[in-house]
Amino acid sequence: MFLPVSLFLKSVSLGFLSVVFVCLWSGIWRGGFAWDGSFLQFNWHPVLMVTSLVVLYGNAIVLYRVPLHWSRWSCKVCHAGLLFLALVLSMLGLCAAFDFHHANNIPHLYSLHSWTGISTVALFSLQVEIALWFGGVTIFIMSLITSISGINEKLLLTLNGRNGSHAQPYSALPAEALFANSLGIVLIIFGLVVLSILSRHKWKKPGFDDETDRPLLIDTR
Amino acid sequence: MFLPVSLFLKSVSLGFLSVVFVCLWSGIWRGGFAWDGSFLQFNWHPVLMVTSLVVLYGNAIVLYRVPLHWSRWSCKVCHAGLLFLALVLSMLGLCAAFDFHHANNIPHLYSLHSWTGISTVALFSLQVEIALWFGGVTIFIMSLITSISGINEKLLLTLNGRNGSHAQPYSALPAEALFANSLGIVLIIFGLVVLSILSRHKWKKPGFDDETDRPLLIDTR
Repeated sequence: MFLPVSLFLKSVSLGFLSVVFVCLWSGIWRGGFAWDGSFLQFNWHPVLMVTSLVVLYGNAIVLYRVPLHWSRWSCKVCHAGLLFLALVLSMLGLCAAFDFHHANNIPHLYSLHSWTGISTVALFSLQVEIALWFGGVTIFIMSLITSISGINEKLLLTLNGRNGSHAQPYSALPAEALFANSLGIVLIIFGLVVLSILSRHKWKKPGFDDETDRPLLIDTR
Repeated sequence: MFLPVSLFLKSVSLGFLSVVFVCLWSGIWRGGFAWDGSFLQFNWHPVLMVTSLVVLYGNAIVLYRVPLHWSRWSCKVCHAGLLFLALVLSMLGLCAAFDFHHANNIPHLYSLHSWTGISTVALFSLQVEIALWFGGVTIFIMSLITSISGINEKLLLTLNGRNGSHAQPYSALPAEALFANSLGIVLIIFGLVVLSILSRHKWKKPGFDDETDRPLLIDTR
């Protein structure tokens, strides 16, 4: 039995919506993008991390359930391509945050968000580079957890910041807070759709049954 | 095939460790407990929410995989008892936060943490009270996400607070921050152990196969 096309389209469109939301948040409320060590460089961090470790990663792991009549080999190549793109974008996203911290004398890796995030990226790098099986679902759930705490942290630090440039604190729910909170809700719904697709064993393709239990790169079948 | 006892003990002991950690955080660094609208009442919030919606809920959903030779009816009663206790404690935990906000003129439900949290509790209440099936795993993952963002939020608001009572900000990683970050990591490991137990279909008990697809209260078998 195949995954219904409507559910697959829901997963793709919620992922697309998440990317649009996070770009609009950085673009409209946080002043846009640059690569100069300023706040504008940091703005790449949420965009690149959400795009790579939530949206591309999520769609890469549901790919084996997609109701397309591709060969097993085409599926593997597309899956590997999405994961490789996710790896490159996530490294750029980390650079954006670390460069910003470095340029502004902000300590690295102190918040719980940064601890869960760096663990997620470390597991993902090991998974891709050494082709060890670290459980794609584990990494995906950790990415979701890290995204939500990261959005919350960014709003608390920015809207409640001591520089006084913001008229309304987070607790007054200004438009930016409403929008970024909604981004968090969209990400959770996207995550739950992806996980619900994965949980239905009846949607596994015939002959692909234990695909997710086998390392991608050392599979010689 | 039965769930290995060692893995079940790991789930129970990580849950117990989480409760100990969250009690120590509130007890040692946040000044202890009271029910008077002060910060000390708020301290019940993390303790009650982690105990109810993560630890009791997580152990309630793995109960059907536990390698004990209980009857199906005993399992159901124990599962229902754990969920009922979780519901009562989570309502008390919500009261602790709302009473504190009310007594200190802090707005309710503005942060992304509060949005994901109130959605989780709402789904859980509907699940228990109307016996609708909302997917225990969905609620459990949402509880994990909410716990991590909540711990992060509490540390940002308290250690970086404007009252100046704290010598060291969150970014200096004082002992409290290290301890509470570690609580977050223990919660994630606990969550991943519970989810890994649930994902192994071979550990479902014979005759219990579709237990989690059937509402508890309207099951007349």
